[in-house]
Amino acid sequence: MRTQVVIVGGGPSGLLLGQLLHRKGIETIILERKTRDYVLGRIRAGILETGLVDMMREAGVSDRMDKECFIHHGTCISYENEMFDINFQELIGQNVIVYGQTEVTRDLYDARDACGGRTLFEVEDVEIRDAETDSPHVTFTIDGSAKRIDCDFVAGCDGFHGVSRKTIPDTVRKDYEKVFPFGWLGVLSETPPVHDELVYANSARGFALCSMRNEHLSRYYVQCDLDDDVFEWSDDRFWDELKRRLPESVADKLVTGPSIEKSIAPLRSFVCEPMRWGRLFLCGDAAHIVPPTGAKGLNTAASDVHYLFEGLVQYYQDNDTNGIDRYSERALARIWKAERFSWATTNMLHRFPDQSEFDLKMQRAEIESLHYNETAQKWFAQNYVGLPY
Amino acid sequence: MRTQVVIVGGGPSGLLLGQLLHRKGIETIILERKTRDYVLGRIRAGILETGLVDMMREAGVSDRMDKECFIHHGTCISYENEMFDINFQELIGQNVIVYGQTEVTRDLYDARDACGGRTLFEVEDVEIRDAETDSPHVTFTIDGSAKRIDCDFVAGCDGFHGVSRKTIPDTVRKDYEKVFPFGWLGVLSETPPVHDELVYANSARGFALCSMRNEHLSRYYVQCDLDDDVFEWSDDRFWDELKRRLPESVADKLVTGPSIEKSIAPLRSFVCEPMRWGRLFLCGDAAHIVPPTGAKGLNTAASDVHYLFEGLVQYYQDNDTNGIDRYSERALARIWKAERFSWATTNMLHRFPDQSEFDLKMQRAEIESLHYNETAQKWFAQNYVGLPY
Repeated sequence: MRTQVVIVGGGPSGLLLGQLLHRKGIETIILERKTRDYVLGRIRAGILETGLVDMMREAGVSDRMDKECFIHHGTCISYENEMFDINFQELIGQNVIVYGQTEVTRDLYDARDACGGRTLFEVEDVEIRDAETDSPHVTFTIDGSAKRIDCDFVAGCDGFHGVSRKTIPDTVRKDYEKVFPFGWLGVLSETPPVHDELVYANSARGFALCSMRNEHLSRYYVQCDLDDDVFEWSDDRFWDELKRRLPESVADKLVTGPSIEKSIAPLRSFVCEPMRWGRLFLCGDAAHIVPPTGAKGLNTAASDVHYLFEGLVQYYQDNDTNGIDRYSERALARIWKAERFSWATTNMLHRFPDQSEFDLKMQRAEIESLHYNETAQKWFAQNYVGLPY
Repeated sequence: MRTQVVIVGGGPSGLLLGQLLHRKGIETIILERKTRDYVLGRIRAGILETGLVDMMREAGVSDRMDKECFIHHGTCISYENEMFDINFQELIGQNVIVYGQTEVTRDLYDARDACGGRTLFEVEDVEIRDAETDSPHVTFTIDGSAKRIDCDFVAGCDGFHGVSRKTIPDTVRKDYEKVFPFGWLGVLSETPPVHDELVYANSARGFALCSMRNEHLSRYYVQCDLDDDVFEWSDDRFWDELKRRLPESVADKLVTGPSIEKSIAPLRSFVCEPMRWGRLFLCGDAAHIVPPTGAKGLNTAASDVHYLFEGLVQYYQDNDTNGIDRYSERALARIWKAERFSWATTNMLHRFPDQSEFDLKMQRAEIESLHYNETAQKWFAQNYVGLPY
């Protein structure tokens, strides 16, 4: 087999890249280790920056999103019984939308089906070969038989545990990492969201987040210990703990119900440099992870797709390698900003095991700055809605 | 003896409070443990916020300051060979002035002499008694004889090591503290300053600061180990180390010369709550310490003087205790903001012994935010020139 761009990984970044390239007449094959249903079953975040929304439109996959999404003009932050709103719309004239990553992925698969793009599921033993030469190829097995695809470029969109990043030799690659000393216990429930915006809660009992997918589907989180067992968290215990971390005015309105998904995720900051090795380009979680505070996960992947798409179009349309040559540098410049914001927001809102009373006062001072100072709010808002590409 | 307000400590905050009160007809006695020459010999910072400048004018002691000070419209930050200016004037229409704390103190002593205010020097064994009652008094010895002053109020302006804070019982007082794992080695030299604004330098070898007192007197600092011995730092070693921490364009212009003062200071954040106990009010270093990054030391003391002066005038003129009752709360609200800024700026600019490579990247991202984002610059500028009282 031969194609122009092999995309390793059939999650939203690989699919979005594939769809954008298709509209420019550039052919791709997507290789996915799991089944389509498995990919669509993963519960992920649902806050989309304008940059991602614009790309969905450019890719021609925005119809359902535009109909079903919720526009959020701001977000709420609480500390003990205090709560305030950061109104992006008023501060900087921008907003974010709520539309589940699962829905984004579904729309992208539907679009790929409609245009006849090739996606191979349940591929195993993927190896990216000769990426440092002008003729890379990807080998894998599918249904027990070995295959090879020759290509011009490989886009590594296969997530943190994927093969793409590991293909870059240790001598070239440098990893930066911070593991936070806590996790998030998340619950999905078919209940109306407690508030019409997200509520990020700093409390003496630890962080909590009230989020949502739509008016009948809520997503809540509480900071938990890394060695907590999800089976020890009954629904009752979860709702009780969540309420104790929210301002009374919010807790009083909370509608509880059975969880339909419950899981614990660790919090990690991670960046690999460079994001390009020869003709292999890393995108999204393959190259970087943010802690979920501030909802930058999918949005940083989208930012990579933006730069890679631009570089590949420049290459194929104008025979100009400038965009792909500068891909790593340009993508990383924006990634580090999002990493900073996610790290700072995580630091501001969580309880840390080694926090001194002075540290707690500094955390409180950071939150009060946001509460009472418009410039601090603007700076937060610019980062939350997404810095310009 | 009897007076209205006993001021313990003859540094700038005690003197400024005394002068402001004098102009409202409120009588004070200042007690100082050292000699006047000793107080005037202490080398301290020299960046004055507008709030302090306005109070100097209100106290009628601004003539020489207005003549001799330098107006700084901004400040420079460097990282390795990059340097940028944060222009307060352009960003927020404000500025700071450069006028040494020693000069402020000298002007205040001259004014106190002129108005016949009483200041007792070399007092020993000061004790603040019955502060929790309506009739406090202060005892001390001077020239070997025991004295007592009865008063309405005591202003504790006697610095971090003074008796005032320790007068508040441990059961009432709560201290918050962070000791930074490094110090500043400072050098004063009769050389022209290397730059017309301050240069705060983040470098792989540690922090450095280029500051000045006037066009012939420079003040430079380099981050050093806490256990460094100042005698191991020859002038040559100091200048060499300073140059290596500055951008080449700055280092090349550095004029070196013999040091006329050289000392190592530790960096500490400290706040004591409450700042009032009965009729005792803490002001300045007696209640709080900031690391010097961002030049908030004298300015936070001035902020306390502002609130205490207001409260005392309200008490004596209108027989209204609201201002003194709310003193601690109002002073602390502003102090914690300045503590946050000083702590954040210290974190942004220094090398820490336990910094991971990820942490260094976050530090770099913070500095680059300031370099390239106007909103981040505005937020920095508002804090640097001083948040409103």
